Amino acid sequence: MAEHKYDVLAIGNAIVDIIGRCNDMFLVKHGATKGGMRLVDAETVKAIYADMGPGIEISGGSAANTMVGVASFGGSAAFIGKVSDDEFGGIFAHDIKAAGVSFKTAKSKGGAPTARSLVLVTPDGERTMNTFLGVSPELNQGEVDLAEVRAAKIVYLEGYLFDRPDAKAAFRTAATEAKAAGGQVALTLSDSFCVDRHRAEFLDLIKTQVDILFANESELKSLYKVATFEEGARLAKAQAKIAVLTRGAKGSVIMSGDKAVTVGAEPVKQVIDTTGAGDLYAAGFLYGHAAGKPLDICGRLGSIAAAEIISHIGARPETSLAALAKKKGF
Amino acid sequence: MAEHKYDVLAIGNAIVDIIGRCNDMFLVKHGATKGGMRLVDAETVKAIYADMGPGIEISGGSAANTMVGVASFGGSAAFIGKVSDDEFGGIFAHDIKAAGVSFKTAKSKGGAPTARSLVLVTPDGERTMNTFLGVSPELNQGEVDLAEVRAAKIVYLEGYLFDRPDAKAAFRTAATEAKAAGGQVALTLSDSFCVDRHRAEFLDLIKTQVDILFANESELKSLYKVATFEEGARLAKAQAKIAVLTRGAKGSVIMSGDKAVTVGAEPVKQVIDTTGAGDLYAAGFLYGHAAGKPLDICGRLGSIAAAEIISHIGARPETSLAALAKKKGF
Repeated sequence: MAEHKYDVLAIGNAIVDIIGRCNDMFLVKHGATKGGMRLVDAETVKAIYADMGPGIEISGGSAANTMVGVASFGGSAAFIGKVSDDEFGGIFAHDIKAAGVSFKTAKSKGGAPTARSLVLVTPDGERTMNTFLGVSPELNQGEVDLAEVRAAKIVYLEGYLFDRPDAKAAFRTAATEAKAAGGQVALTLSDSFCVDRHRAEFLDLIKTQVDILFANESELKSLYKVATFEEGARLAKAQAKIAVLTRGAKGSVIMSGDKAVTVGAEPVKQVIDTTGAGDLYAAGFLYGHAAGKPLDICGRLGSIAAAEIISHIGARPETSLAALAKKKGF
Repeated sequence: MAEHKYDVLAIGNAIVDIIGRCNDMFLVKHGATKGGMRLVDAETVKAIYADMGPGIEISGGSAANTMVGVASFGGSAAFIGKVSDDEFGGIFAHDIKAAGVSFKTAKSKGGAPTARSLVLVTPDGERTMNTFLGVSPELNQGEVDLAEVRAAKIVYLEGYLFDRPDAKAAFRTAATEAKAAGGQVALTLSDSFCVDRHRAEFLDLIKTQVDILFANESELKSLYKVATFEEGARLAKAQAKIAVLTRGAKGSVIMSGDKAVTVGAEPVKQVIDTTGAGDLYAAGFLYGHAAGKPLDICGRLGSIAAAEIISHIGARPETSLAALAKKKGF
């Protein structure tokens, strides 16, 4: 088996976040479910933006955030996703490359704009996302460079990709190719509403192609249509090779075969913005796993990265996660 | 005299800041003078951006920041400045209006892009700016709505405007119209290099049209080509009606006729990013002055706003300055 060039390669939506603060009433007024991610059309994104307060623009995208996290830990990471040649596309491409992530997907010319998500942060630090995908769904199978996919120890796929019909095929092909080249496949369920839209396909993937499943509590409950975390965990343990279940302030549970490891959340002085908590937890876990660390260490690295990201605005780390991990004794 | 609709109206460059962290060597490599603002062309801004780390985009522009500050204190504010109908223009227009500032200048179609400034923040919190003005210089005299200018108690002009030949005429016309309508004219010298480029004209304006002069220590020294703050202050006191001289951590000195008031800087836990310190000091001062407060109170309000802005990334307030002032007993 050839040496793998990347620790992790991700395929996902390439998004710029427009982050603003609002109160709970604003969410009600615009029909957004607190804590969730919903897809909106160009008119809706325009209407919400016109009504919301001043914003800050920071590159985002779930799997893209995770890759930036892996690179910040010192791992080698690559990202495949579609932007347009507009100013937001320029921002996204600059930021991910400047963070040390390989990003080679060609920009589309004209047509739909680069994806953007209005991230509304309420006073409790919770984030609610309204995403206009723009050009992102136009990533087609031919643009997923299979030589790059085969060069990764772990291929990481975001569930949000399933909201794009054409991307499903690319998703499955990438998974097959990665495994044929001796790599592993990781999947994050992304959002409980996303799970609701694609439950059958996710369940099939988990049984057949996925080596590492990431899910938070609400995604897990949605996946198995169960009322409690414990019921969901029992089913995930039976079906997934490795199930990484995150529970916010309650920490995480990692299960693999007979093993079940519980990891506490890192203490945080003040939760400013939860955007990217799951993305960065995945970054720490994947970085550790690619380096051959045991599951409890992978979980601790995930907790450290998640704690960094929720202590400031935006889903991209503001400090070196490698330095942070070192300070914590890793 | 008619009732004034605005407490303050500003004319300035409409800029989106791209803020990133760097070390001192990066500034040396790119020939930037630490702490300064320099104008760069499209190629230079592209080259520096390609070399710098990940960024955060936040609306900026010196006088625009000041108007957002005035509005945050609860004052009525307006801004005149030129953006293009591109994505950065959309960001600028949204953010300033969402902050409660009246902004009616028409966007240009096609042509030069909206202005952007690469704001490089070193570990000591100091900011160094590389500004590509783009479409901003295309604001012409006809676009400075004189009815709006006459409707302001104070018209605030940024020195940076003098870097645009056509804007000088607009600048003088606005000053004349404002005074004829019973308003006052305020000028900020913006930057020591800017002062160096336009010294003679600034000196003439200060003697003839300016009611309130804002300058920091290096701008003051540059204006009068003197070695010490004290020498500069003596000259400013003799020539300006009201001279508001800021000294960073040393606070500020306000002089008017025989009076000289010294105001201490507000304590700050940690200086994160000095971008906008002078802009927000001016906001507090102008808000207080428009409300008829004595000079020492105007200075305190300036210090409070400056302390808020340097305690986080970006030059737009993250909390209500009205609430902050109230908490401090105003």
